[in-house]
Amino acid sequence: MTGSVSIIGLGPGNALQRTPQADQALSRATDLVGYGPYVQRVEASASVVRHCSDNREELDRARHALELAMQGRHVAVVSGGDAGVFGMASAVFEAVDYGPQAWRTLDITVVPGVSAVLAAAARLGAPLGGDFCVMSLSDNLKPWPVVLRRLALAAEAGFVIALYNPRSKARPTQLGEALEHLRACLPGSVPVAFARAMGRADEAVRLATLVEADATWADMSTLVLIGCAASHLIPRPDGRVWLYTSRKVEAA
Amino acid sequence: MTGSVSIIGLGPGNALQRTPQADQALSRATDLVGYGPYVQRVEASASVVRHCSDNREELDRARHALELAMQGRHVAVVSGGDAGVFGMASAVFEAVDYGPQAWRTLDITVVPGVSAVLAAAARLGAPLGGDFCVMSLSDNLKPWPVVLRRLALAAEAGFVIALYNPRSKARPTQLGEALEHLRACLPGSVPVAFARAMGRADEAVRLATLVEADATWADMSTLVLIGCAASHLIPRPDGRVWLYTSRKVEAA
Repeated sequence: MTGSVSIIGLGPGNALQRTPQADQALSRATDLVGYGPYVQRVEASASVVRHCSDNREELDRARHALELAMQGRHVAVVSGGDAGVFGMASAVFEAVDYGPQAWRTLDITVVPGVSAVLAAAARLGAPLGGDFCVMSLSDNLKPWPVVLRRLALAAEAGFVIALYNPRSKARPTQLGEALEHLRACLPGSVPVAFARAMGRADEAVRLATLVEADATWADMSTLVLIGCAASHLIPRPDGRVWLYTSRKVEAA
Repeated sequence: MTGSVSIIGLGPGNALQRTPQADQALSRATDLVGYGPYVQRVEASASVVRHCSDNREELDRARHALELAMQGRHVAVVSGGDAGVFGMASAVFEAVDYGPQAWRTLDITVVPGVSAVLAAAARLGAPLGGDFCVMSLSDNLKPWPVVLRRLALAAEAGFVIALYNPRSKARPTQLGEALEHLRACLPGSVPVAFARAMGRADEAVRLATLVEADATWADMSTLVLIGCAASHLIPRPDGRVWLYTSRKVEAA
Protein backbone atom coordinates (compact mmCIF):
# COMPACT_ATOMS: atom_id res chain seq x y z
CA MET A 1 0.00 0.00 0.00
CA THR A 2 2.06 2.89 -1.31
CA GLY A 3 0.59 6.33 -1.24
CA SER A 4 1.66 9.52 -2.96
CA VAL A 5 1.56 13.29 -2.70
CA SER A 6 1.10 15.40 -5.80
CA ILE A 7 1.47 19.14 -5.24
CA ILE A 8 -0.53 20.81 -7.99
CA GLY A 9 -0.72 24.36 -9.32
CA LEU A 10 -4.30 24.97 -10.49
CA GLY A 11 -3.43 28.08 -12.51
CA PRO A 12 -4.76 31.58 -11.98
CA GLY A 13 -8.49 31.10 -11.81
CA ASN A 14 -10.16 29.37 -14.71
CA ALA A 15 -9.90 25.85 -16.06
CA LEU A 16 -8.59 27.06 -19.45
CA GLN A 17 -5.36 28.07 -17.73
CA ARG A 18 -4.92 24.72 -15.97
CA THR A 19 -2.59 22.23 -17.68
CA PRO A 20 -3.64 18.71 -18.76
CA GLN A 21 -0.83 17.46 -16.48
CA ALA A 22 -2.61 19.05 -13.51
CA ASP A 23 -5.93 17.49 -14.59
CA GLN A 24 -4.26 14.06 -14.89
CA ALA A 25 -2.73 14.35 -11.43
CA LEU A 26 -6.07 15.47 -9.95
CA SER A 27 -7.86 12.51 -11.55
CA ARG A 28 -5.63 10.07 -9.64
CA ALA A 29 -6.28 11.66 -6.25
CA THR A 30 -8.23 9.97 -3.46
CA ASP A 31 -7.88 13.06 -1.26
CA LEU A 32 -7.75 16.80 -1.94
CA VAL A 33 -5.88 18.96 0.56
CA GLY A 34 -5.59 22.74 0.54
CA TYR A 35 -6.97 26.14 1.36
CA GLY A 36 -10.77 25.90 1.13
CA PRO A 37 -11.42 28.02 -2.00
CA TYR A 38 -8.80 26.09 -4.01
CA VAL A 39 -10.09 22.67 -2.93
CA GLN A 40 -13.64 23.74 -3.83
CA ARG A 41 -12.49 24.85 -7.29
CA VAL A 42 -11.64 21.25 -8.24
CA GLU A 43 -14.30 19.07 -9.85
CA ALA A 44 -13.96 15.53 -8.49
CA SER A 45 -16.07 12.42 -8.03
CA ALA A 46 -18.06 12.01 -4.83
CA SER A 47 -15.64 9.37 -3.51
CA VAL A 48 -12.79 11.89 -3.30
CA VAL A 49 -12.31 13.23 0.23
CA ARG A 50 -11.91 17.02 0.49
CA HIS A 51 -9.78 18.32 3.36
CA CYS A 52 -10.24 22.08 3.46
CA SER A 53 -8.28 24.27 5.83
CA ASP A 54 -7.67 27.88 6.67
CA ASN A 55 -5.12 30.00 4.83
CA ARG A 56 -2.63 30.26 7.69
CA GLU A 57 -2.04 26.58 8.41
CA GLU A 58 0.32 25.57 5.62
CA LEU A 59 2.68 23.42 7.68
CA ASP A 60 -0.08 21.52 9.51
CA ARG A 61 -1.80 20.98 6.19
CA ALA A 62 1.43 19.68 4.65
CA ARG A 63 1.97 17.21 7.52
CA HIS A 64 -1.62 16.02 7.22
CA ALA A 65 -1.11 15.35 3.50
CA LEU A 66 2.09 13.38 4.20
CA GLU A 67 0.38 11.33 6.92
CA LEU A 68 -2.47 10.47 4.57
CA ALA A 69 0.05 9.34 1.94
CA MET A 70 1.79 7.14 4.51
CA GLN A 71 -1.59 5.44 5.01
CA GLY A 72 -1.63 4.65 1.28
CA ARG A 73 -3.82 7.53 0.09
CA HIS A 74 -3.11 9.44 -3.13
CA VAL A 75 -3.18 13.01 -2.00
CA ALA A 76 -3.44 16.06 -4.24
CA VAL A 77 -2.27 19.19 -2.44
CA VAL A 78 -3.66 22.10 -4.44
CA SER A 79 -2.56 25.73 -4.73
CA GLY A 80 -3.75 28.57 -6.94
CA GLY A 81 -1.35 29.60 -9.72
CA ASP A 82 1.90 27.66 -9.35
CA ALA A 83 2.37 25.67 -6.14
CA GLY A 84 6.08 26.54 -6.05
CA VAL A 85 5.51 30.32 -5.97
CA PHE A 86 4.21 31.21 -2.50
CA GLY A 87 2.06 28.07 -2.67
CA MET A 88 2.16 24.74 -0.85
CA ALA A 89 5.28 23.13 -2.38
CA SER A 90 7.78 24.66 0.01
CA ALA A 91 5.65 23.85 3.07
CA VAL A 92 5.43 20.18 2.06
CA PHE A 93 9.20 19.83 1.63
CA GLU A 94 9.82 21.73 4.88
CA ALA A 95 7.53 19.22 6.63
CA VAL A 96 9.50 16.36 5.05
CA ASP A 97 12.83 17.94 6.06
CA TYR A 98 11.81 18.09 9.74
CA GLY A 99 9.55 15.01 9.72
CA PRO A 100 10.08 11.26 10.20
CA GLN A 101 12.68 9.62 7.95
CA ALA A 102 9.97 7.43 6.39
CA TRP A 103 8.41 10.44 4.68
CA ARG A 104 11.52 10.62 2.46
CA THR A 105 10.52 7.34 0.83
CA LEU A 106 7.19 8.79 -0.32
CA ASP A 107 6.39 9.44 -3.98
CA ILE A 108 6.14 13.26 -3.96
CA THR A 109 5.80 15.19 -7.22
CA VAL A 110 5.16 18.82 -8.05
CA VAL A 111 3.04 19.76 -11.07
CA PRO A 112 3.81 23.31 -12.23
CA GLY A 113 1.10 25.80 -13.13
CA VAL A 114 0.65 29.25 -14.64
CA SER A 115 1.48 31.55 -11.73
CA ALA A 116 -0.45 34.75 -11.00
CA VAL A 117 2.49 36.92 -12.06
CA LEU A 118 2.51 35.35 -15.53
CA ALA A 119 -1.25 35.69 -15.92
CA ALA A 120 -1.15 39.33 -14.79
CA ALA A 121 1.73 40.10 -17.13
CA ALA A 122 -0.08 38.52 -20.10
CA ARG A 123 -3.20 40.56 -19.35
CA LEU A 124 -1.18 43.80 -19.22
CA GLY A 125 1.04 43.27 -22.28
CA ALA A 126 4.66 42.33 -21.64
CA PRO A 127 5.78 44.00 -18.41
CA LEU A 128 8.27 41.18 -17.63
CA GLY A 129 10.25 41.80 -20.84
CA GLY A 130 13.48 42.23 -18.88
CA ASP A 131 14.90 40.83 -15.67
CA PHE A 132 12.41 40.74 -12.80
CA CYS A 133 11.88 39.60 -9.24
CA VAL A 134 8.95 38.06 -7.42
CA MET A 135 8.41 38.86 -3.75
CA SER A 136 5.81 38.24 -1.09
CA LEU A 137 4.98 41.36 0.87
CA SER A 138 3.80 39.32 3.84
CA ASP A 139 5.87 39.55 7.00
CA ASN A 140 4.34 36.45 8.57
CA LEU A 141 7.54 34.50 7.83
CA LYS A 142 10.17 37.20 7.33
CA PRO A 143 10.98 40.41 9.18
CA TRP A 144 9.56 43.59 7.63
CA PRO A 145 12.98 45.29 7.47
CA VAL A 146 14.15 42.42 5.22
CA VAL A 147 11.20 43.11 2.89
CA LEU A 148 12.06 46.82 2.66
CA ARG A 149 15.74 46.09 2.08
CA ARG A 150 14.92 43.63 -0.71
CA LEU A 151 12.64 46.19 -2.37
CA ALA A 152 15.42 48.79 -2.37
CA LEU A 153 17.98 46.33 -3.78
CA ALA A 154 15.54 45.15 -6.46
CA ALA A 155 14.86 48.76 -7.49
CA GLU A 156 18.59 49.47 -7.57
CA ALA A 157 19.11 46.41 -9.78
CA GLY A 158 16.52 47.69 -12.25
CA PHE A 159 14.26 44.66 -11.80
CA VAL A 160 10.56 44.85 -12.50
CA ILE A 161 9.07 43.87 -9.13
CA ALA A 162 6.05 41.58 -8.76
CA LEU A 163 4.43 41.67 -5.32
CA TYR A 164 2.34 38.77 -4.03
CA ASN A 165 0.21 39.12 -0.88
CA PRO A 166 0.33 42.93 -1.04
CA ARG A 167 -2.43 43.60 1.45
CA SER A 168 -4.92 41.84 3.70
CA LYS A 169 -7.22 42.71 6.57
CA ALA A 170 -4.51 41.62 8.99
CA ARG A 171 -1.82 43.60 7.12
CA PRO A 172 -3.49 46.80 5.89
CA THR A 173 -0.51 49.18 6.00
CA GLN A 174 2.41 47.36 4.38
CA LEU A 175 1.76 48.04 0.71
CA GLY A 176 1.53 51.76 1.48
CA GLU A 177 4.87 51.62 3.28
CA ALA A 178 6.40 49.61 0.45
CA LEU A 179 5.23 52.11 -2.19
CA GLU A 180 6.54 55.00 -0.09
CA HIS A 181 9.88 53.21 0.26
CA LEU A 182 10.05 52.62 -3.51
CA ARG A 183 9.26 56.28 -4.25
CA ALA A 184 12.57 57.09 -2.58
CA CYS A 185 14.41 54.64 -4.89
CA LEU A 186 12.69 54.97 -8.29
CA PRO A 187 11.45 57.77 -10.59
CA GLY A 188 7.85 58.69 -9.75
CA SER A 189 6.92 58.17 -13.40
CA VAL A 190 7.55 54.40 -13.25
CA PRO A 191 4.34 52.52 -14.13
CA VAL A 192 2.61 50.46 -11.46
CA ALA A 193 -0.10 47.91 -12.26
CA PHE A 194 -2.71 46.42 -9.94
CA ALA A 195 -3.99 43.15 -11.41
CA ARG A 196 -6.87 41.62 -9.48
CA ALA A 197 -8.38 38.12 -9.70
CA MET A 198 -6.74 37.22 -13.03
CA GLY A 199 -8.74 34.70 -15.05
CA ARG A 200 -11.81 35.01 -12.81
CA ALA A 201 -15.14 36.67 -13.57
CA ASP A 202 -14.28 39.66 -11.39
CA GLU A 203 -10.89 40.24 -13.07
CA ALA A 204 -9.80 43.90 -13.00
CA VAL A 205 -6.71 45.91 -13.89
CA ARG A 206 -5.66 49.38 -12.83
CA LEU A 207 -2.59 51.32 -14.03
CA ALA A 208 -0.93 54.36 -12.50
CA THR A 209 2.47 55.93 -12.00
CA LEU A 210 4.44 55.18 -8.84
CA VAL A 211 3.61 58.69 -7.57
CA GLU A 212 -0.13 58.17 -8.06
CA ALA A 213 -0.36 54.51 -6.96
CA ASP A 214 -2.67 54.06 -3.97
CA ALA A 215 -2.28 51.03 -1.72
CA THR A 216 -6.02 50.86 -1.05
CA TRP A 217 -6.56 49.72 -4.65
CA ALA A 218 -5.11 46.32 -3.68
CA ASP A 219 -6.61 43.45 -1.73
CA MET A 220 -5.64 39.83 -1.01
CA SER A 221 -6.40 38.81 -4.62
CA THR A 222 -4.29 41.53 -6.23
CA LEU A 223 -0.87 41.17 -7.78
CA VAL A 224 1.04 44.46 -7.83
CA LEU A 225 3.68 45.02 -10.53
CA ILE A 226 6.22 47.84 -10.17
CA GLY A 227 7.84 48.75 -13.47
CA CYS A 228 11.40 49.91 -14.08
CA ALA A 229 13.09 52.58 -16.20
CA ALA A 230 12.64 50.42 -19.30
CA SER A 231 8.86 49.97 -18.76
CA HIS A 232 6.63 51.87 -21.19
CA LEU A 233 2.93 52.47 -21.80
CA ILE A 234 1.44 52.22 -25.28
CA PRO A 235 -1.81 54.23 -25.47
CA ARG A 236 -4.38 52.88 -27.94
CA PRO A 237 -6.99 54.83 -29.92
CA ASP A 238 -9.82 53.23 -27.90
CA GLY A 239 -8.41 54.55 -24.61
CA ARG A 240 -6.94 51.25 -23.44
CA VAL A 241 -3.23 50.94 -22.73
CA TRP A 242 -0.58 48.24 -23.07
CA LEU A 243 2.32 47.99 -20.63
CA TYR A 244 5.62 46.47 -21.71
CA THR A 245 9.24 46.46 -20.62
CA SER A 246 11.85 46.89 -23.30
CA ARG A 247 14.33 44.03 -23.62
CA LYS A 248 17.12 46.50 -24.21
CA VAL A 249 18.95 47.93 -21.20
CA GLU A 250 21.22 50.96 -21.52
CA ALA A 251 24.60 51.10 -19.79
CA ALA A 252 24.27 52.33 -16.19
CA MET B 1 -11.01 42.19 -42.69
CA THR B 2 -9.74 42.36 -39.12
CA GLY B 3 -6.73 40.29 -38.21
CA SER B 4 -5.26 39.46 -34.85
CA VAL B 5 -2.04 38.54 -33.10
CA SER B 6 -2.04 36.01 -30.30
CA ILE B 7 1.28 35.64 -28.49
CA ILE B 8 1.29 32.17 -27.02
CA GLY B 9 3.42 30.41 -24.43
CA LEU B 10 3.65 26.74 -25.41
CA GLY B 11 4.93 25.59 -22.01
CA PRO B 12 8.23 23.89 -21.29
CA GLY B 13 8.35 21.05 -23.74
CA ASN B 14 5.46 18.64 -23.78
CA ALA B 15 1.79 19.04 -24.61
CA LEU B 16 0.71 18.03 -21.09
CA GLN B 17 2.17 21.29 -19.81
CA ARG B 18 0.40 23.43 -22.42
CA THR B 19 -2.87 25.08 -21.31
CA PRO B 20 -6.23 24.56 -23.05
CA GLN B 21 -6.26 28.35 -23.55
CA ALA B 22 -3.07 28.05 -25.62
CA ASP B 23 -4.59 25.19 -27.65
CA GLN B 24 -7.74 27.26 -28.30
CA ALA B 25 -5.70 30.24 -29.46
CA LEU B 26 -3.58 28.00 -31.73
CA SER B 27 -6.70 26.46 -33.29
CA ARG B 28 -7.84 29.90 -34.49
CA ALA B 29 -4.52 30.72 -36.19
CA THR B 30 -4.10 31.02 -39.95
CA ASP B 31 -0.36 31.65 -39.52
CA LEU B 32 2.28 30.46 -37.07
CA VAL B 33 5.26 32.74 -36.47
CA GLY B 34 8.28 32.00 -34.31
CA TYR B 35 11.65 30.42 -33.82
CA GLY B 36 11.74 27.28 -35.97
CA PRO B 37 11.76 24.57 -33.27
CA TYR B 38 8.76 26.15 -31.48
CA VAL B 39 6.74 26.54 -34.70
CA GLN B 40 7.50 22.90 -35.60
CA ARG B 41 6.29 21.77 -32.17
CA VAL B 42 2.72 22.88 -32.95
CA GLU B 43 0.32 20.43 -34.59
CA ALA B 44 -1.80 22.32 -37.13
CA SER B 45 -3.85 21.62 -40.25
CA ALA B 46 -2.11 21.79 -43.63
CA SER B 47 -3.79 25.12 -44.45
CA VAL B 48 -1.94 26.89 -41.65
CA VAL B 49 1.12 28.79 -42.89
CA ARG B 50 4.29 28.27 -40.89
CA HIS B 51 6.76 31.19 -40.80
CA CYS B 52 9.93 29.91 -39.16
CA SER B 53 12.84 32.19 -38.40
CA ASP B 54 16.20 32.18 -36.70
CA ASN B 55 16.57 32.77 -32.97
CA ARG B 56 18.17 36.21 -33.21
CA GLU B 57 15.51 38.00 -35.28
CA GLU B 58 12.82 38.74 -32.69
CA LEU B 59 12.01 42.28 -33.78
CA ASP B 60 11.81 41.47 -37.51
CA ARG B 61 9.67 38.47 -36.68
CA ALA B 62 7.37 40.64 -34.53
CA ARG B 63 6.94 43.20 -37.32
CA HIS B 64 6.20 40.42 -39.80
CA ALA B 65 3.46 39.07 -37.50
CA LEU B 66 1.92 42.54 -37.15
CA GLU B 67 1.99 43.10 -40.93
CA LEU B 68 0.26 39.76 -41.50
CA ALA B 69 -2.43 40.73 -38.97
CA MET B 70 -2.95 44.07 -40.77
CA GLN B 71 -3.68 41.98 -43.89
CA GLY B 72 -6.45 40.22 -41.98
CA ARG B 73 -4.55 37.09 -40.97
CA HIS B 74 -4.91 35.51 -37.52
CA VAL B 75 -1.34 35.12 -36.39
CA ALA B 76 -0.13 32.96 -33.53
CA VAL B 77 3.33 34.05 -32.37
CA VAL B 78 4.71 31.13 -30.38
CA SER B 79 7.37 30.93 -27.68
CA GLY B 80 8.54 28.09 -25.47
CA GLY B 81 7.54 28.35 -21.81
CA ASP B 82 5.82 31.68 -21.20
CA ALA B 83 5.97 34.25 -24.02
CA GLY B 84 6.33 37.09 -21.49
CA VAL B 85 9.51 35.70 -19.91
CA PHE B 86 12.36 36.22 -22.39
CA GLY B 87 9.94 35.18 -25.14
CA MET B 88 8.25 37.06 -27.98
CA ALA B 89 5.73 39.22 -26.07
CA SER B 90 8.07 42.12 -25.36
CA ALA B 91 9.41 42.18 -28.94
CA VAL B 92 5.86 42.42 -30.34
CA PHE B 93 4.92 45.35 -28.11
CA GLU B 94 8.24 47.06 -28.82
CA ALA B 95 7.47 46.76 -32.54
CA VAL B 96 4.02 48.26 -31.92
CA ASP B 97 5.52 51.09 -29.84
CA TYR B 98 7.86 52.15 -32.68
CA GLY B 99 5.60 51.08 -35.56
CA PRO B 100 2.77 52.72 -37.52
CA GLN B 101 -0.14 54.10 -35.46
CA ALA B 102 -2.53 51.63 -37.17
CA TRP B 103 -0.88 48.71 -35.38
CA ARG B 104 -2.34 50.03 -32.11
CA THR B 105 -5.84 49.20 -33.36
CA LEU B 106 -4.96 45.51 -33.77
CA ASP B 107 -6.42 42.81 -31.56
CA ILE B 108 -3.29 41.62 -29.73
CA THR B 109 -3.53 39.16 -26.83
CA VAL B 110 -0.99 37.26 -24.77
CA VAL B 111 -1.71 33.73 -23.58
CA PRO B 112 0.44 32.86 -20.56
CA GLY B 113 2.23 29.55 -20.23
CA VAL B 114 4.24 27.51 -17.74
CA SER B 115 7.67 29.12 -17.90
CA ALA B 116 10.89 27.10 -17.80
CA VAL B 117 11.74 28.38 -14.33
CA LEU B 118 8.48 26.98 -12.92
CA ALA B 119 8.95 23.62 -14.65
CA ALA B 120 12.53 23.37 -13.41
CA ALA B 121 11.52 24.30 -9.88
CA ALA B 122 8.74 21.69 -9.86
CA ARG B 123 11.17 19.02 -11.05
CA LEU B 124 13.66 19.88 -8.28
CA GLY B 125 11.25 20.24 -5.35
CA ALA B 126 10.45 23.77 -4.19
CA PRO B 127 13.54 25.94 -4.73
CA LEU B 128 11.42 29.09 -5.26
CA GLY B 129 9.86 28.86 -1.79
CA GLY B 130 10.96 32.42 -0.95
CA ASP B 131 11.51 35.62 -2.93
CA PHE B 132 13.36 35.11 -6.20
CA CYS B 133 14.51 36.81 -9.37
CA VAL B 134 14.61 35.76 -13.00
CA MET B 135 17.41 37.03 -15.22
CA SER B 136 18.70 36.47 -18.71
CA LEU B 137 22.46 36.01 -18.81
CA SER B 138 22.62 37.14 -22.43
CA ASP B 139 24.39 40.41 -23.13
CA ASN B 140 22.91 40.78 -26.61
CA LEU B 141 20.57 43.50 -25.34
CA LYS B 142 22.17 44.66 -22.11
CA PRO B 143 25.77 45.48 -21.17
CA TRP B 144 27.63 42.70 -19.35
CA PRO B 145 28.56 44.97 -16.39
CA VAL B 146 24.82 45.48 -15.79
CA VAL B 147 24.37 41.69 -15.63
CA LEU B 148 27.16 41.32 -13.06
CA ARG B 149 25.83 44.21 -10.96
CA ARG B 150 22.33 42.71 -10.95
CA LEU B 151 23.71 39.33 -9.86
CA ALA B 152 25.52 40.94 -6.92
CA LEU B 153 22.44 42.91 -5.84
CA ALA B 154 20.21 39.83 -6.16
CA ALA B 155 22.63 37.82 -4.01
CA GLU B 156 22.76 40.63 -1.44
CA ALA B 157 18.94 40.68 -1.37
CA GLY B 158 18.86 36.96 -0.60
CA PHE B 159 16.90 36.11 -3.74
CA VAL B 160 17.06 32.69 -5.31
CA ILE B 161 18.36 33.49 -8.82
CA ALA B 162 17.02 31.81 -11.97
CA LEU B 163 19.24 32.26 -15.03
CA TYR B 164 17.84 31.98 -18.56
CA ASN B 165 20.16 31.80 -21.60
CA PRO B 166 23.14 30.85 -19.44
CA ARG B 167 25.42 29.73 -22.25
CA SER B 168 25.53 29.33 -26.00
CA LYS B 169 28.16 28.73 -28.68
CA ALA B 170 28.33 32.49 -29.25
CA ARG B 171 28.60 33.20 -25.49
CA PRO B 172 30.67 30.36 -24.01
CA THR B 173 32.33 32.23 -21.13
CA GLN B 174 29.61 34.24 -19.39
CA LEU B 175 28.14 31.61 -17.07
CA GLY B 176 31.65 30.89 -15.77
CA GLU B 177 32.20 34.58 -15.07
CA ALA B 178 28.76 34.85 -13.44
CA LEU B 179 29.44 31.89 -11.12
CA GLU B 180 32.84 33.32 -10.22
CA HIS B 181 31.21 36.67 -9.46
CA LEU B 182 28.57 34.99 -7.28
CA ARG B 183 31.22 33.03 -5.35
CA ALA B 184 32.46 36.40 -4.08
CA CYS B 185 28.94 37.30 -2.85
CA LEU B 186 27.47 34.05 -1.51
CA PRO B 187 28.56 31.13 0.70
CA GLY B 188 30.20 28.41 -1.39
CA SER B 189 27.78 25.88 0.11
CA VAL B 190 24.74 27.42 -1.58
CA PRO B 191 23.08 24.82 -3.84
CA VAL B 192 23.11 25.33 -7.59
CA ALA B 193 20.87 23.36 -9.96
CA PHE B 194 21.26 22.81 -13.68
CA ALA B 195 17.89 21.85 -15.18
CA ARG B 196 18.08 20.91 -18.85
CA ALA B 197 15.25 20.46 -21.39
CA MET B 198 12.44 20.27 -18.82
CA GLY B 199 9.45 18.25 -20.01
CA ARG B 200 11.33 16.83 -23.00
CA ALA B 201 12.60 13.30 -23.56
CA ASP B 202 16.20 14.38 -22.89
CA GLU B 203 15.33 16.12 -19.58
CA ALA B 204 18.23 16.11 -17.11
CA VAL B 205 19.02 17.63 -13.72
CA ARG B 206 22.37 18.17 -11.99
CA LEU B 207 22.91 19.52 -8.47
CA ALA B 208 26.06 20.92 -6.91
CA THR B 209 27.26 23.55 -4.49
CA LEU B 210 28.24 26.99 -5.76
CA VAL B 211 31.90 26.08 -5.21
CA GLU B 212 31.62 22.92 -7.31
CA ALA B 213 29.29 24.23 -10.02
CA ASP B 214 30.88 24.04 -13.48
CA ALA B 215 29.65 26.31 -16.28
CA THR B 216 30.31 23.64 -18.92
CA TRP B 217 27.40 21.62 -17.53
CA ALA B 218 25.02 24.17 -19.10
CA ASP B 219 23.96 24.69 -22.68
CA MET B 220 21.29 26.78 -24.45
CA SER B 221 18.49 24.54 -23.14
CA THR B 222 19.56 24.73 -19.50
CA LEU B 223 18.01 26.79 -16.75
CA VAL B 224 20.45 27.47 -13.91
CA LEU B 225 19.08 28.06 -10.41
CA ILE B 226 21.31 29.60 -7.73
CA GLY B 227 19.99 28.97 -4.23
CA CYS B 228 20.19 31.26 -1.22
CA ALA B 229 20.99 30.85 2.48
CA ALA B 230 17.50 29.40 3.07
CA SER B 231 17.86 26.72 0.36
CA HIS B 232 18.28 23.16 1.61
CA LEU B 233 18.82 19.68 0.20
CA ILE B 234 16.78 16.71 1.42
CA PRO B 235 18.65 13.45 0.72
CA ARG B 236 16.44 10.43 0.13
CA PRO B 237 17.19 6.77 0.90
CA ASP B 238 17.33 5.92 -2.83
CA GLY B 239 20.10 8.46 -3.45
CA ARG B 240 17.95 11.11 -5.05
CA VAL B 241 17.70 14.58 -3.54
CA TRP B 242 15.01 17.24 -3.21
CA LEU B 243 15.91 20.93 -3.22
CA TYR B 244 13.68 23.45 -1.45
CA THR B 245 13.90 26.96 -0.07
CA SER B 246 12.43 27.59 3.34
CA ARG B 247 9.65 30.17 3.45
CA LYS B 248 11.01 31.50 6.72
CA VAL B 249 13.69 34.21 6.60
CA GLU B 250 15.74 35.11 9.67
CA ALA B 251 16.47 38.72 10.57
CA ALA B 252 19.53 40.03 8.72
